[in-house]
Amino acid sequence: MGKTLNLRADYVIGFLGAGQLAKMSAQEAFRYGWRVTSYSDRPAAEPLQWMSPLSHTGSFEDVDALVAFAETCDVITLENEFLSSEVLHQVVERTGVPIYPSPASFEAVESKWKEKSTFQAAGIPVAPFAIVSSSQDFVTFGDTHGWPFVLKSSKGGYDGYGNRVVSSLEEAQEGFQSLGGDAGDTGHEIIAEAMVPFVKELAVQVARNELGMVVYPCCETIQTGQICTAVLAPAPVEASIQSKAQELAMAAMEAIDGVGLFAFEFFLTDSGDLLLNESAPRPHNSGHYTIEACESSQFDNHVRAVTSTPLGSTAMKVPTAIMINILGTDERPSKLDGAVELLEHNAKLHLYGKAQSKPGRKMGHLTLLGEDVDALYKQGRSWVDGLRL
Amino acid sequence: MGKTLNLRADYVIGFLGAGQLAKMSAQEAFRYGWRVTSYSDRPAAEPLQWMSPLSHTGSFEDVDALVAFAETCDVITLENEFLSSEVLHQVVERTGVPIYPSPASFEAVESKWKEKSTFQAAGIPVAPFAIVSSSQDFVTFGDTHGWPFVLKSSKGGYDGYGNRVVSSLEEAQEGFQSLGGDAGDTGHEIIAEAMVPFVKELAVQVARNELGMVVYPCCETIQTGQICTAVLAPAPVEASIQSKAQELAMAAMEAIDGVGLFAFEFFLTDSGDLLLNESAPRPHNSGHYTIEACESSQFDNHVRAVTSTPLGSTAMKVPTAIMINILGTDERPSKLDGAVELLEHNAKLHLYGKAQSKPGRKMGHLTLLGEDVDALYKQGRSWVDGLRL
Repeated sequence: MGKTLNLRADYVIGFLGAGQLAKMSAQEAFRYGWRVTSYSDRPAAEPLQWMSPLSHTGSFEDVDALVAFAETCDVITLENEFLSSEVLHQVVERTGVPIYPSPASFEAVESKWKEKSTFQAAGIPVAPFAIVSSSQDFVTFGDTHGWPFVLKSSKGGYDGYGNRVVSSLEEAQEGFQSLGGDAGDTGHEIIAEAMVPFVKELAVQVARNELGMVVYPCCETIQTGQICTAVLAPAPVEASIQSKAQELAMAAMEAIDGVGLFAFEFFLTDSGDLLLNESAPRPHNSGHYTIEACESSQFDNHVRAVTSTPLGSTAMKVPTAIMINILGTDERPSKLDGAVELLEHNAKLHLYGKAQSKPGRKMGHLTLLGEDVDALYKQGRSWVDGLRL
Repeated sequence: MGKTLNLRADYVIGFLGAGQLAKMSAQEAFRYGWRVTSYSDRPAAEPLQWMSPLSHTGSFEDVDALVAFAETCDVITLENEFLSSEVLHQVVERTGVPIYPSPASFEAVESKWKEKSTFQAAGIPVAPFAIVSSSQDFVTFGDTHGWPFVLKSSKGGYDGYGNRVVSSLEEAQEGFQSLGGDAGDTGHEIIAEAMVPFVKELAVQVARNELGMVVYPCCETIQTGQICTAVLAPAPVEASIQSKAQELAMAAMEAIDGVGLFAFEFFLTDSGDLLLNESAPRPHNSGHYTIEACESSQFDNHVRAVTSTPLGSTAMKVPTAIMINILGTDERPSKLDGAVELLEHNAKLHLYGKAQSKPGRKMGHLTLLGEDVDALYKQGRSWVDGLRL
């Protein structure tokens, strides 16, 4: 008896979130004839809402609305972390509709404190960290692990929001307040994290379900002002480091019994050590290159994983790929200018369909495939720098 | 001064038709952040209707409804030929919204008679043909060009519907009636076409707009019972024949001033001659292999062509590709069984999201890439023969 698949035309995948990550996953879901629907907390027209007759809007804390949404779905997945595992647990309990990643997996990485504790307990190296809430905590942490260190809001941070580098007790006290920390019961949990003197930032995506687990190549992420601006794949580091990052990513995935597509970000130190920095329980900017560069993209394996479908090969089809984010340059209705040459040269352009452009907003990305990573990056950078939107 | 592109998030492409061809074009349109909408004459839920909040239904003869639809679009394109150029002309005149292929191009190939006359006048070889409506016409045609010959309804035929092979005057008379022909003014126009003793059927897709023209590799289509069941790319024929088919396809595209993506089907005779058999003013089953096998697929270049975007490279990324149609095996709600192994081996599965399966209905397709066309075909055939849906 073979396994029964969910390859039926009335199968509905519900996305919590309707941004570009859900959009690109949905583009793959359509290839299998599945239907998609979304639940978003943003009232404006989000990318995925233009790709479905079925979109819902509401708060991610409104259990009743989420239950009503779940009842229109065969399975639910997510594209961001601005959710509560407690709410997800309730939705699964009340409807029986599975959510992948599961509420339990989500709970294991829900706050930075839980995430780092979970991975540390599984033997995966992480930077020294502690929950901090008092002046004594700041001083103890800094004196033990070195000044400056980083204060992080335990939940809700991304692209550098929610982080503060602090060099003194005074800065730590100010940072704590500005991140919304509170010594009482009402504020955010804040953790202190030692600064890691890294030489590169690496990332690995892993897909997993009950049928198996696949791991993507280790790539390098280039950060500018704490925003990922480009990705080189495979990472220009020794093969042994690539393999080690892949092994740690798979171990992390198993530690949380992850089902779906996760990304794991690492610091590479100058002594060649890898420290797990962050995880994301969803497709990730670091894996956009996989759309053209790998046999099955992170978005393909995302929808395969959550629908209990056999996972696809993650092998690269080309020696090298580079991905460069297309960030908004102006505050205006979204319209891309300057793309003629890159289209004529068949660079792979992706635009997310966001209605409004803002300086620094992620509006799309460009992928180039080839052999010489430096030449590709230089060419891609020159094209992207010539864009206005 | 660079060309201004239509790469804006509020740009809407309207599809006349909402079947799998529109669906696969829309999947590419989403990559550029465009919105899609559809107008379909089928009341049931069509594939593209699950991929847009904006679908319309109505008759393709209802000019007012089509005008209302057009007013929601920036450009309109089509996925079938069951349209009237007269209606398309009126919609463009009343709204100013462009339709590509243009009503004039569509008019040039609207009926089999016009199509063959247009291409013949452009110096492109076609099989002998004539409009027939009387016993005298049948006898004259058969005696001049040989019995049996083919009667074709001048409009609306596909996959063998609308064709009759006739071997005698009596069969010709019966065929004429059964195709809805009429000697008076009320019936369909019927043409007679000489049987071509071909050794292979070849196809070539061409994309064209004001910025340029690109031509796809020449592929072979395998027909079973007048339905295309598989495609081999490139066609296993001499390079000179492949080139000749590409040249004829481009000449045909220019002859009708085609804008969009067209497919041209050829008979290859045992003496190595090529005769243009049919054209399609839209993406075509013969070009599905291009999704994975070519730098830019026929669907990518379809949406690029109609949106005045530079066209992408049609170069193959692999030595060989084969495409096998997945036809319904049962009358039941669509659910695909038997696909585990092909998914595990990363064969490229496409399902169209049609709600209902019927024996022989095109429900999806499978593409395999590699080097050995015979081995690929054998493997793909074995997988597809093991599917139930």
